[in-house]
Amino acid sequence: MLVQPYQLSATDAAAKIRDGQLTVEEYAQSLLARIQERDPIVKAWAYINPDQVLEQARKLDAVPKEERGPLHGVVIAVKDVIYTKGKSTGGDQAEYRLVNGHVSDMPTQFNSPIYKDDAPQVDAASIIILRNAGALILGKTTTTEFAATTQGPQTTNPHDSSRTPGGSSSGSGAVVADFQAPISLGTQTGGSTIRPASFNGIYGFKPTWNSISREGQKVFSLILDTLGIYARSVDDLNLLAGVFALEDDESPNQEYSIRSGKFAICKTMVWPQAGPGLIKAMDQAVELLRSNGATVEEIEFPEHLQDLPKWHSIVFNSDGRTAFLPEYRVDKSQIADQLVGHVENRLEISRAAQVKAFDDIAAARPVVDDMLARYDAVLVPSVPDEAPKGIEATGSAAFNLIWTALHNPVINIPGFAGENGMPIGLSLVAPRYHDRKLLVVSREVGKLFEGAGGWKSQIV
Amino acid sequence: MLVQPYQLSATDAAAKIRDGQLTVEEYAQSLLARIQERDPIVKAWAYINPDQVLEQARKLDAVPKEERGPLHGVVIAVKDVIYTKGKSTGGDQAEYRLVNGHVSDMPTQFNSPIYKDDAPQVDAASIIILRNAGALILGKTTTTEFAATTQGPQTTNPHDSSRTPGGSSSGSGAVVADFQAPISLGTQTGGSTIRPASFNGIYGFKPTWNSISREGQKVFSLILDTLGIYARSVDDLNLLAGVFALEDDESPNQEYSIRSGKFAICKTMVWPQAGPGLIKAMDQAVELLRSNGATVEEIEFPEHLQDLPKWHSIVFNSDGRTAFLPEYRVDKSQIADQLVGHVENRLEISRAAQVKAFDDIAAARPVVDDMLARYDAVLVPSVPDEAPKGIEATGSAAFNLIWTALHNPVINIPGFAGENGMPIGLSLVAPRYHDRKLLVVSREVGKLFEGAGGWKSQIV
Repeated sequence: MLVQPYQLSATDAAAKIRDGQLTVEEYAQSLLARIQERDPIVKAWAYINPDQVLEQARKLDAVPKEERGPLHGVVIAVKDVIYTKGKSTGGDQAEYRLVNGHVSDMPTQFNSPIYKDDAPQVDAASIIILRNAGALILGKTTTTEFAATTQGPQTTNPHDSSRTPGGSSSGSGAVVADFQAPISLGTQTGGSTIRPASFNGIYGFKPTWNSISREGQKVFSLILDTLGIYARSVDDLNLLAGVFALEDDESPNQEYSIRSGKFAICKTMVWPQAGPGLIKAMDQAVELLRSNGATVEEIEFPEHLQDLPKWHSIVFNSDGRTAFLPEYRVDKSQIADQLVGHVENRLEISRAAQVKAFDDIAAARPVVDDMLARYDAVLVPSVPDEAPKGIEATGSAAFNLIWTALHNPVINIPGFAGENGMPIGLSLVAPRYHDRKLLVVSREVGKLFEGAGGWKSQIV
Repeated sequence: MLVQPYQLSATDAAAKIRDGQLTVEEYAQSLLARIQERDPIVKAWAYINPDQVLEQARKLDAVPKEERGPLHGVVIAVKDVIYTKGKSTGGDQAEYRLVNGHVSDMPTQFNSPIYKDDAPQVDAASIIILRNAGALILGKTTTTEFAATTQGPQTTNPHDSSRTPGGSSSGSGAVVADFQAPISLGTQTGGSTIRPASFNGIYGFKPTWNSISREGQKVFSLILDTLGIYARSVDDLNLLAGVFALEDDESPNQEYSIRSGKFAICKTMVWPQAGPGLIKAMDQAVELLRSNGATVEEIEFPEHLQDLPKWHSIVFNSDGRTAFLPEYRVDKSQIADQLVGHVENRLEISRAAQVKAFDDIAAARPVVDDMLARYDAVLVPSVPDEAPKGIEATGSAAFNLIWTALHNPVINIPGFAGENGMPIGLSLVAPRYHDRKLLVVSREVGKLFEGAGGWKSQIV
């Protein structure tokens, strides 16, 4: 079968564009056609303007070869909680156009009626870096309100439209799984990047906290919020890791082999929530690693860290008290009751409890880093099971909260399937700022899991 | 002498406006006249547009009495690293006007040529809250580049134009001291709020980290950056603390008295840098507190926390590596060499050293909170001495770094003067989230210091 441009990984598309086998405009046209076909079912876009996309593509095609960046022509979808200017070049701020009665500048709306059609003329730090490297910003993907509630947007899981794609990065997970974009940006405060990655059967990467600037990304919790990246291959994640200048202390050897690799699994204190799909995937994974020559130990959190999920919840809730005060003041009837609850401190979390949870998590970070540092990577659950039925709720983030609080890099590796044939991923985690090493290990583990686990992210 | 409107505190101006003795337009006119007179010397504005100010004032005067907020007509100057929309109301984004050849929408330029005339159409979280309470955003004040370098802007100290007003919140400190605005917003990553407060002889308040949303304020270091507030009276700081919903676990008794108060001084590990002005001010302060019936003990940091300034420096530098990558990529020739150094990790700080410093500071926070909790407040230096000569450099932040890293609320109390008659303030600090208690104590301590110390912030 002839591979269509929309089916390419970002790495392959960039190579074809570099070699002159594909123009950015042809590539964009292919993705737009795919989107037109699939959008009525998946509904993953908060904003997309084909004219604007093609205009960007033609501009990129006009860039002389010697001035092109490492992401030249790579197309990226962006979760609609990250600021995006309408135009790829600065300058004439007064130039507005109307397309179908809407402002054509790319809006940032947070799935909030308060920000409907709002189009701040500013790019987030991540977007500046991506555009500067030659990326084409395709459009804005759906999110739960402010990436901060558990109520799903209209988006469906591309593998079964009766199921949720997860959240809060609902659209970003779905578009990559559905070949509507090769790469997308998400965010994670609880489980908002890793959970959709697992539910949609793709790779999701939550890098070390603050290793990529979060400037221009809606604030929920400063100490938890992390930018996330989706792709259908680890090579694509690695491409972006380079552009974002992620650097470990030691550059990892790219020739990593699972044979004689040293792994651990950590089921975590949340394991009682594991469903049959997760239990089976975890068993399969251990078996695959061992049968390929790796050692796999089982490790546990020390007793004094069993409350990590509770500490996360305290910080999450009390930081929401600060974060959503502006919108509460502007019009509290227009924000979700969950957010009103944060601002009004409905859980009656004291300041003393808040700083204690903040400090207890901080004290746990070096302990857990030491625990993880003894292995090439540690395998942990991404989600309790397959994506649940219904799109009203985005599923459980129970297995993600710990790692978000701890700031560790996490990569969801697809490769397994549950009782209904829906994807289930597992996560690899590493100590803070071992992101590049984790990517190297993930590439090999991904090949192994996708090769034999029962789920492939690359197949249409 | 008849008090002119521009000389009023925010609290008094708000009361007069509420009582119908003053319109917002008259108040704004008075401030604009003061600015027109003084700006050629002090040069504290990065952007101010009198037409826009008066338009806002007239709109506020037209608001029906029953719809007015707690800051109705209060005028606030904003450091030019905080996003401000051009208009106080949202809506028609396409409406741009040109004034004297410049975009009339209020720009946010960070004192960076990369962002010259850039006017993102978005308000920072703090600005949304202030506008919603009825504040008038006067204009943007000067800053060092991205609030992240030590090279001063063109601004002079209003009390001696041959001296620096400090930085990085140079303009915000100067305009409040010079009666060009009653209140201003600054930021602090090292000593950027407290140092200018001391050099200009006014109150400066760095609240508990993340107690006010920093969204829409340029990111340098997520774990250090804090919004700051300047005023010439503690009542004005308290007014804003209420609007920003700062809340301690226990609402403090407003009837605090220094008599039988319990204080400590902490000279900190940086004391060898103290100049004669600071040494004298500290002695005077202790004498004043004791002669007014308070007890004053001396406390010291435990031995294992002596490296706190070094840990701050490591975090500060490595966070700059992340924060300034976008501008470095866009055009590194247009950012200060100091920032290029951050991005290129010129100090060769390893990731291991970075996370260790981050974790060591985190472990210090509860220890220092416990140390501070035994007193009504703890008195610490704000600066080594008076504002130094010259405006090229913004002075030393050595005494501020520790408290920024530790997240404690800090208030600079003016009241003393150095060998050249320039102001010297001292800081009161408290445990995290004891901001309202600290304000109550600061009000009384401020009266005492300003009454007998040799410097008054209220006199023109």
